[in-house]
Amino acid sequence: MIRKILIANRGEIAVRIIRACREMGIETVAVYSEADKEALHTQLADEAVCIGPAPSKESYLNMERIISATIVSGADAIHPGFGFLSENSRFAELCEQCHITFIGPGSEVIAKLGNKQEARNTMIAAGVPVIPGSTEPIYDVETGSREAEKIGYPVIIKAALGGGGKGMRVADTPEEFAESFRTAQKEAQMAFGDDTMYIEHFVRHPRHIEFQILADEMGHVIHLGERDCSIQRNHQKMIEESPCAAISEELRKKMGEAAVKAAKAAGYVNAGTIEFLLEKNQKFYFMEMNTRIQVEHPMTEWVTGIDLVKEQIRIASGLPLSYRQEDVQLKGHAIECRINAENPAEGFRPSPGLITDLYLPGGKGIRVDSAVYSGCTIPPYYDSMIAKLIVWAQNREEAIRKMQSALGEVIIEGIDTNVDYQYEIFNHPDYLSGNIDVEFIENKVIGYED
Amino acid sequence: MIRKILIANRGEIAVRIIRACREMGIETVAVYSEADKEALHTQLADEAVCIGPAPSKESYLNMERIISATIVSGADAIHPGFGFLSENSRFAELCEQCHITFIGPGSEVIAKLGNKQEARNTMIAAGVPVIPGSTEPIYDVETGSREAEKIGYPVIIKAALGGGGKGMRVADTPEEFAESFRTAQKEAQMAFGDDTMYIEHFVRHPRHIEFQILADEMGHVIHLGERDCSIQRNHQKMIEESPCAAISEELRKKMGEAAVKAAKAAGYVNAGTIEFLLEKNQKFYFMEMNTRIQVEHPMTEWVTGIDLVKEQIRIASGLPLSYRQEDVQLKGHAIECRINAENPAEGFRPSPGLITDLYLPGGKGIRVDSAVYSGCTIPPYYDSMIAKLIVWAQNREEAIRKMQSALGEVIIEGIDTNVDYQYEIFNHPDYLSGNIDVEFIENKVIGYED
Repeated sequence: MIRKILIANRGEIAVRIIRACREMGIETVAVYSEADKEALHTQLADEAVCIGPAPSKESYLNMERIISATIVSGADAIHPGFGFLSENSRFAELCEQCHITFIGPGSEVIAKLGNKQEARNTMIAAGVPVIPGSTEPIYDVETGSREAEKIGYPVIIKAALGGGGKGMRVADTPEEFAESFRTAQKEAQMAFGDDTMYIEHFVRHPRHIEFQILADEMGHVIHLGERDCSIQRNHQKMIEESPCAAISEELRKKMGEAAVKAAKAAGYVNAGTIEFLLEKNQKFYFMEMNTRIQVEHPMTEWVTGIDLVKEQIRIASGLPLSYRQEDVQLKGHAIECRINAENPAEGFRPSPGLITDLYLPGGKGIRVDSAVYSGCTIPPYYDSMIAKLIVWAQNREEAIRKMQSALGEVIIEGIDTNVDYQYEIFNHPDYLSGNIDVEFIENKVIGYED
Repeated sequence: MIRKILIANRGEIAVRIIRACREMGIETVAVYSEADKEALHTQLADEAVCIGPAPSKESYLNMERIISATIVSGADAIHPGFGFLSENSRFAELCEQCHITFIGPGSEVIAKLGNKQEARNTMIAAGVPVIPGSTEPIYDVETGSREAEKIGYPVIIKAALGGGGKGMRVADTPEEFAESFRTAQKEAQMAFGDDTMYIEHFVRHPRHIEFQILADEMGHVIHLGERDCSIQRNHQKMIEESPCAAISEELRKKMGEAAVKAAKAAGYVNAGTIEFLLEKNQKFYFMEMNTRIQVEHPMTEWVTGIDLVKEQIRIASGLPLSYRQEDVQLKGHAIECRINAENPAEGFRPSPGLITDLYLPGGKGIRVDSAVYSGCTIPPYYDSMIAKLIVWAQNREEAIRKMQSALGEVIIEGIDTNVDYQYEIFNHPDYLSGNIDVEFIENKVIGYED
């Protein structure tokens, strides 16, 4: 069993991991940058090691310093949290070479799943649905049209060398195809000097649905249901919930089985997340696999009762999963809302600084994961997320009302936050009715000026 | 349906009720004493009415002022919380007379259950076990001895007019009876000028076990499992847990059925608690019924997922219970620890004052119910409980470790608290092994000097 863990992270996830360790009787070592000397994770851990100046590449992203701190402190394992080095296969490899347990999958699995094409091929081979697309270069309307029929409309026609939306057109029907293709190809030629085209099924107004899985070294893999993370701004998740209001028990079973299949195909070990796009017609497509704990893991913890960080540590210690698939029962509804130090009225400009007054709600069905306290300073160097407010209730409607009520109680003085902005979303009729997709914020939320 | 509720209470339970109302879309009116002008409940409610000076009898216990505030603010119901007027049948009656919905049982039921002898008789008639005792006055050893045999050893022999432990002896066996009786009778004669004796079964080292029940106006009654509240100091509960480590599924069923029978026999409506003494041999005895929400209700909420305050409001609105008995499933283990503003080293002397710095833990499985914030003042006039720390985990062992870890994080500066004292209990070998009874604190906790 692991005895002592170095947490190669900061902020609320570092605090989250320290708490899990303490409850398991495992010693903890925090690492901190010079800017995080007074940070909560630095204070809460059994030991704390300064690993360098504030900029991440000189501290939280500095592999050598983190490995040194691990060896010097006598820790036998590293928990990478999320972000920073958590999905860096070279870091995981370095841990392996130094005989330090990396709490996550093996470096080769991280590398394989981090490569989009390799991940896609793995999933195709395993029979996990991916977004259908052309496999050969396309140069003319006739070939393209035949491919589009095979792939299924709507399709998106892209420049093979493309990017930034140039040389890109959507065709909803065969009738539209020829013109869209020619326009896209012309643009491609002009923008990239190349008219090679690629066609893919276009998933219109999808939901972002992800399945949490747990896998041990013995080859057991289970899933813990889904999270709906469709409420995003610039591909940054803002609000997540579990379960998804649009997923039936039958579809959950199907997607869950696909998630388990995906993890098995990748030879995955530890906690991971399989991200899918879910189309309105209930078709779903593999997007990518995240090989780490996620920001939004608390919702899954609340509807299942399972402590994901503790399971990660158990798995990394070589223990079998504590649960079988049939032990996993989803109960009630959980929603998470990310509280960021930012000003939504000024294009979500980050707002670091001193928190002069702080009041966060509590009580039944309220969980706050944060690393802030009254009088702490939010440094300007890191992600702007300062707290996660998670609610649980018997059903979605009640959970939303709880979130409204809880957000109404929050007091954070001294810096700007997105609390009022979040409050607006939790009062938006489309959000209330569950009519959401990944474009919700951009298309429907008033005051969005990014 | 109730539209607007006046909360006739203060502190964390007032905040708890305000949150439930907000989530149900019900308006709230706080009442506050002059000492509670800056209190959290005063700030959080939609409206707040000052009802008088700090001493409770001039404000929180002043029925007329509370009724006036209700009428003036247009509230159609009163939630009494716990303590103060919550079990005052005259107050409930006054509400009835003024056509204000009292969120609790009817005044007659409160009066009946508040009278110990009447409550006992009701339970005997309903077949709910009570502590067996003599029914006629006893004057001599021979009669007493016959009664003791019927009642079952050990027995306690008491002066009928007794009190304060005088004229009171325990006899463990028939051999001990005669001498114990004579000594007790002599003491009784000397202390009270009367040698009439009363004999009762003596429940040695009992646990305090209570069952939460919910009853609606249609006559449906369900129980939500038990809470073990054995950790007490001077009959004040300090730590509670649910479920009880010593209760088997079979015993839970039996006691739960007795609790439902007790509530039905009393014609009970709303949330209530039946308190039992549980003997080591698994026999249990009705003690009393509490006709209100209890301090320790959050644990039941966590293991069942049911919001008790919302159910109270629904029941008082004339709605049927949201759950049937078979819907109630206990999951995991919850523990509550009361954080008091007091100094355990000085006989638990209350320690009111300004909280200059405050940090309360959060995260997975942590619930804090409190009305304190950094910079608030604890007035000297009221109960010293300032926060409840509730944890939930899959099992008792994990829940205890979570509580240890959470207590270790608490920072309350400016006043004395019992946090360190509580921490000691959560590290006591007998507590850890579940070997507890109502005398645990007095017999086993080091440093107890009250």
